[in-house]
Amino acid sequence: MSDDVDATGEALSDSLAAVRDREPLVQQLTNEVTKNDLANVTLGWGAIPVMADAPGEAPEMAELADAVLLNTGRMTDSNVEALHAAGKRANELGVPVVLDPVGAGTTPTREEVHASLLEKVEFAAIKGNYGEVTHLAGADADVKGVESIGEYEEIAESALALAETTGAAVVASGAEDIVAGPDRVYRVSAGHEMLTTIIGTGCMLGSTLAAFAGSLEDDLAAAVHGTLAYGLAGERATDLEYNGPASYRVNFLDSIAGLTPDVATGLETMDRLERLH
Amino acid sequence: MSDDVDATGEALSDSLAAVRDREPLVQQLTNEVTKNDLANVTLGWGAIPVMADAPGEAPEMAELADAVLLNTGRMTDSNVEALHAAGKRANELGVPVVLDPVGAGTTPTREEVHASLLEKVEFAAIKGNYGEVTHLAGADADVKGVESIGEYEEIAESALALAETTGAAVVASGAEDIVAGPDRVYRVSAGHEMLTTIIGTGCMLGSTLAAFAGSLEDDLAAAVHGTLAYGLAGERATDLEYNGPASYRVNFLDSIAGLTPDVATGLETMDRLERLH
Amino acid sequence: MSDDVDATGEALSDSLAAVRDREPLVQQLTNEVTKNDLANVTLGWGAIPVMADAPGEAPEMAELADAVLLNTGRMTDSNVEALHAAGKRANELGVPVVLDPVGAGTTPTREEVHASLLEKVEFAAIKGNYGEVTHLAGADADVKGVESIGEYEEIAESALALAETTGAAVVASGAEDIVAGPDRVYRVSAGHEMLTTIIGTGCMLGSTLAAFAGSLEDDLAAAVHGTLAYGLAGERATDLEYNGPASYRVNFLDSIAGLTPDVATGLETMDRLERLH
Repeated sequence: MSDDVDATGEALSDSLAAVRDREPLVQQLTNEVTKNDLANVTLGWGAIPVMADAPGEAPEMAELADAVLLNTGRMTDSNVEALHAAGKRANELGVPVVLDPVGAGTTPTREEVHASLLEKVEFAAIKGNYGEVTHLAGADADVKGVESIGEYEEIAESALALAETTGAAVVASGAEDIVAGPDRVYRVSAGHEMLTTIIGTGCMLGSTLAAFAGSLEDDLAAAVHGTLAYGLAGERATDLEYNGPASYRVNFLDSIAGLTPDVATGLETMDRLERLH
Repeated sequence: MSDDVDATGEALSDSLAAVRDREPLVQQLTNEVTKNDLANVTLGWGAIPVMADAPGEAPEMAELADAVLLNTGRMTDSNVEALHAAGKRANELGVPVVLDPVGAGTTPTREEVHASLLEKVEFAAIKGNYGEVTHLAGADADVKGVESIGEYEEIAESALALAETTGAAVVASGAEDIVAGPDRVYRVSAGHEMLTTIIGTGCMLGSTLAAFAGSLEDDLAAAVHGTLAYGLAGERATDLEYNGPASYRVNFLDSIAGLTPDVATGLETMDRLERLH
Repeated sequence: MSDDVDATGEALSDSLAAVRDREPLVQQLTNEVTKNDLANVTLGWGAIPVMADAPGEAPEMAELADAVLLNTGRMTDSNVEALHAAGKRANELGVPVVLDPVGAGTTPTREEVHASLLEKVEFAAIKGNYGEVTHLAGADADVKGVESIGEYEEIAESALALAETTGAAVVASGAEDIVAGPDRVYRVSAGHEMLTTIIGTGCMLGSTLAAFAGSLEDDLAAAVHGTLAYGLAGERATDLEYNGPASYRVNFLDSIAGLTPDVATGLETMDRLERLH
């Protein structure tokens, strides 16, 4: 059993520095709604985004990538084919793959695509909202559109179950984020409710996790630190003036770039992480 | 013949509250240029966006939706197939469908697609700029790209004609917005010229109308109140500092979220609505 | 041999005024990551964007366009087919075509698509980063994802070689921008390092060049003035407060719209342009 994840500001700083030093090429197959945001978030952490998602080219780019994000927001045949092709090639080469199962549980099409991806691709991390994670774990969940509704007391157990089944680090994002590895579960207490007022914040967390997965050896530590850094950036975004969702979003993207290793070193973050199991 | 639309601040407030209470799931098949904006606008009004537009999945998502927006900005085969599939399924289920016929009158391809959609799908509302509405109504119009050029004195008559033919509430957006039902025409005096300096404001009005159509019983009242609320948000965006189109856009998106039912109650809006016929 | 490009503020002002007077319709076939930005940049210069990129419709829209931008960011079959169809039709009609060869040199797919476009379409301008231009010119280049890495001392020679081979004005963007015609090379010293912190600034320069190419007779002067105006807007964006990449981006888009002919007249820009060969 591995050591517990270190949640000191120094440890977080080291992870942030690892991303900036490694400058991982993060290939992101994602939906058209948030492509621009995801690319900017990736740059903000110090990684290099590339969004190549044509079915023919996706596996070629996966050969160059340090991490691959599979966001299932768009269900066209072309996108689904590219998700499989890139995931397969990345697995062959040992490149970590992150899954963001957007809207899992809403339509039969998504049901089939997510089941197929989970069967054929091995993931370093899987990130969903409570509803999506609950659905993938096999429990019942109520998902409206791609937004998750309601609270799930059992979310820690669902995340753990999904981590056990898949071997991935599982991040269930919600009011409090749950991060599970196959043998443990953490609660990450960071973030801000304004993140729920703008589109794509879930997708942006997926990009964040891919940037961290492409820079760190330990998948679970990468998931915890990525989730923690993301939430802290969301909080720190309120240090600047904002008048609603759009100006908060500008602050948030600035805040990601501003959460440098130097800044992180000085943060008191120990109480943000609690081990549940 | 129905009653006149009530344009008091209280009536507008009630409509805004209806959107927030209903939290309609608004499925939006739209172009890639403005997908992110449309999703954020929808959230801003308190509705829930879902942009699922793969041909196979679009009708599945229409079964879950409270309103469907068909924006014809992108003319790929996949998009056109999805527009028809979602529109058909929504019609079968009685889910209101809003049409935004982007660039109607520019190319033969758009001519054919718009004619086909008007023939096969029944719309609760149709929104275009002066040129697009004039074109769909059968009159000559001069459209450059997807921007409408020139003034059309006959726009009220064109909107009325299109409303009569289709049964839809028709919104012709321009310096002054015209909203027509089959038996009447209103002028809505709200908005700001800065809205013409940013991309996608027409598309964002389409999303707005879909959110209102998914929350209110009366299609014409939904179109009038959606148009009015949108224009007021555009005006109120100038209350905050801006230095050009991009900062105005941030203000505008903030302003949509800030036009709460409480705020609307206090507004003097009676003189914003004039019945022309 | 033509006269040297005039880099006075008055000359730049004349070019900016030409764009605003002509209001060229700029058709842009581009990637999904930056579509919204490109459309807003185009509007900012006073041109009219249209992003029609379905294979069937693309050549129809090219018939209406004053300039066509072919950005190769997305390599789906549909996009590649549309790039060829629009480029061919624009060539037939004498509409200037601008190429932005995104990620040239990264994957076999891109290799093939760029070679094919260069063989079959005639370009008024080609814009890439140092790595992309070097690659297209036939020299070795190191490109990571779609970001160019490292410095290339030979970039002026590569740009000149590519201009000679293709007849296009070639813009190699980097710390200093190089603009080459078939018989000369300029260095344009304008821009700001913050431009490297946001996604799509290279693509936005491509849109800028297309707007200028659609408004001016001389392809080389259009490329020089477009590049200079773009860099100046990037510098002037720092006159307003910003806290990171996202707020800088808002400033930058505002700054483009704010670089009016009147403003440009008063600028000392002579020392921004140096002829190298």
